[in-house]
Amino acid sequence: MTTSDPGFGVSADVLARIAQDEKIDAATLSERIQQGTVVAMGGDGVLPMAIGAGMRTKVNANLGTSPDYPDLAGELDKLHAAVAAGADAVMDLSTGGDIDEIRRAVRAECPVLLGTVPVYQAFAEAEDRHGEMMRMTGDELLEVVARHCADNIDFATLHCGVTRATVAALKTQPRIGGIVSRGGSLLAAWMRHNNAENPLYERYDELLAILREYGVAISLGDGLRPGAVADATDAGQVAETRVLGELVLRARAAGVQAFVEGPGHVPLDQIEANVLLEKRLCHDAPFYVLGPLVTDVAPGYDHITGAIGGAICAAAGADFLCYVTPAEHLGLPTVADVIDGVMASRIAAHAADIVKGVPGAREWDDRMSRARHELDWRAMENLALDPGRVRLTRGDRPTADDAACSMCGKFCSVRASRFMEQDAEGSAR
Amino acid sequence: MTTSDPGFGVSADVLARIAQDEKIDAATLSERIQQGTVVAMGGDGVLPMAIGAGMRTKVNANLGTSPDYPDLAGELDKLHAAVAAGADAVMDLSTGGDIDEIRRAVRAECPVLLGTVPVYQAFAEAEDRHGEMMRMTGDELLEVVARHCADNIDFATLHCGVTRATVAALKTQPRIGGIVSRGGSLLAAWMRHNNAENPLYERYDELLAILREYGVAISLGDGLRPGAVADATDAGQVAETRVLGELVLRARAAGVQAFVEGPGHVPLDQIEANVLLEKRLCHDAPFYVLGPLVTDVAPGYDHITGAIGGAICAAAGADFLCYVTPAEHLGLPTVADVIDGVMASRIAAHAADIVKGVPGAREWDDRMSRARHELDWRAMENLALDPGRVRLTRGDRPTADDAACSMCGKFCSVRASRFMEQDAEGSAR
Repeated sequence: MTTSDPGFGVSADVLARIAQDEKIDAATLSERIQQGTVVAMGGDGVLPMAIGAGMRTKVNANLGTSPDYPDLAGELDKLHAAVAAGADAVMDLSTGGDIDEIRRAVRAECPVLLGTVPVYQAFAEAEDRHGEMMRMTGDELLEVVARHCADNIDFATLHCGVTRATVAALKTQPRIGGIVSRGGSLLAAWMRHNNAENPLYERYDELLAILREYGVAISLGDGLRPGAVADATDAGQVAETRVLGELVLRARAAGVQAFVEGPGHVPLDQIEANVLLEKRLCHDAPFYVLGPLVTDVAPGYDHITGAIGGAICAAAGADFLCYVTPAEHLGLPTVADVIDGVMASRIAAHAADIVKGVPGAREWDDRMSRARHELDWRAMENLALDPGRVRLTRGDRPTADDAACSMCGKFCSVRASRFMEQDAEGSAR
Repeated sequence: MTTSDPGFGVSADVLARIAQDEKIDAATLSERIQQGTVVAMGGDGVLPMAIGAGMRTKVNANLGTSPDYPDLAGELDKLHAAVAAGADAVMDLSTGGDIDEIRRAVRAECPVLLGTVPVYQAFAEAEDRHGEMMRMTGDELLEVVARHCADNIDFATLHCGVTRATVAALKTQPRIGGIVSRGGSLLAAWMRHNNAENPLYERYDELLAILREYGVAISLGDGLRPGAVADATDAGQVAETRVLGELVLRARAAGVQAFVEGPGHVPLDQIEANVLLEKRLCHDAPFYVLGPLVTDVAPGYDHITGAIGGAICAAAGADFLCYVTPAEHLGLPTVADVIDGVMASRIAAHAADIVKGVPGAREWDDRMSRARHELDWRAMENLALDPGRVRLTRGDRPTADDAACSMCGKFCSVRASRFMEQDAEGSAR
């Protein structure tokens, strides 16, 4: 099989490794990368990984310090926890402490894809430099983007679709939640304050040149994503998605791989339509969603709310799930929150992969179910999404009969079912 | 407005209370109860509650001792935790200790609907009496059903659809997981061992007479539900659903309210079809599902796996969700597991109610989102599904600025969004 160069600076090694992991032939993979329906990242010490059409649904964990909690060591603990829990990518969203130092430390210890959101740091530095975030200049913003890219990140979220026109579209359909994207709201406020267009849009060609130079993919941020189920799929969101679709084409033409971010808060019956809109309007660029959360009322449990939306969204075609932790809407996540968030998103991703027909997905379930029917607890533990959690739960609840569990004991349905099958077979076992 | 008697022994008080809670007029409700598309239970000290067409999606929590853990006090703790967490019903599935004593104690302390599965106790007593579970007699089984009904339970799960014909149907399509219902597997083993038909099917008229006498609803158990995604919607399951449909009509004709239990383990893309099959084959009887779990590989997190399936299933028309706890497939749940299970199912139920158009459902989300946009933390806490969890999480992560949270601090998107809105309004606030 001959494999043409996929372009975008994706190396033959990265292509081969992804093709092997995804059980897809390299020529097909290469073609999809060329077309932009798959984005391939990693290499040079970072685990190669692809998101997009036909790929396993991937999971991202957001990390990062805040002004109240600027502790680097704590974020590195979360990084290691996220990777151990199976995150395919992490994003460093730090806004507190020495942001450059934190990003470089995270990169040094991060074996998986790393993304960042440079706009936070640009605003933070503007406050330090000018005494006011809103005095940030476009040059300063682009310089921070370049600084992040030079630190060997794999992708950058840039809210290029928050424009005068899309912010105006918001006003045509009043929202309950306003703008809930941190980057999106800061940029919109900046635009209003300075009566100027978003530099990330106005100077998009310069931005692409920077990304191209460093081989960094663009994650087109959804700065106007809905933050309330009432606001889902509204004029502002759809206007932004249309702009992002144009920006996807310009990125591809400039040699920059692009994917598109999506909501947010979406009621169950609008999720499929959101995927369709992104795929149609953004030329089948991979879709990266945050949740989506199917209700607003469950702070403390938004990893579950997000897993419901994420599973439906990924089954409908979303490619990359950003986790939501139990701390969402309440505060900075702890290490335990990070683990719960990754696990919940992995469940959503895998449940979708079963029905997407991702090679090997259903086989995992079948192996687990066979182990269950054999009461093979060792195999069940090893096959579990989180073997440690299985071990802990079983260990907490010892049973008189090690082969059964503390739920059923002698009323074990597996035993009764096997007894019946054996009896039916006339076996004396 | 005149309200005809709904029949089935449903009192005018119960009807009025449910109509008020569900924001539906009593005449419409009465008609649905008569038709059997809604089942109304409770009264006489038990909170009246309805499941079925147009009603809020309800949540059940399974409790009960096991042979390894026969402790009554522990189960009462779980009962109180489940009710405090918002369970609409509980089932006592005890199989260990003095089962009569436990059931009566649970009933005495249970303010919400109570269901049981009498077959477990019948098998347990057969072992004590005859030295072998399989020597249970049909008379003994029916006597245990009557004993449960006399203890003022609201509904009983009875696996009447596990018949010679439906068990034979299982063999036409081999399964990975066999029979995973505890009652279903024990009955199938009993039928094979004794070469006899299931007494719950053969003596269904006698069973209905008992239920009718005590005004207890029948939850037609899905003894052949799939226990692996590979086994979903197979010949055995569908054969049983067809039988349950016939039994629904016989129950209604005999003056017994009936609803139907469903899976189990179902891949995402088969959930809607499962709801359609139940509604069509079972004459629109309310559908009570366990999960469904959308993957087999996540023991330790099956409350999340079940919430994904439950939300999709309820949005498609399921009426009553049996919770799944993080301990599913591993052991007897703890109090913490019970709380996590109820909360996960309540999220699924509410996410579905938003799109089902249940009166008041979306308004709850909108109130929360307004509170969020106002940074009104007191209101957010009070409106949360679990105010205590919100308080704990916030309390754990103090911030320099009480109005913000530890995630964003000065980068708060709500503030930036409000700043922009105020600026746009030309306000000096």
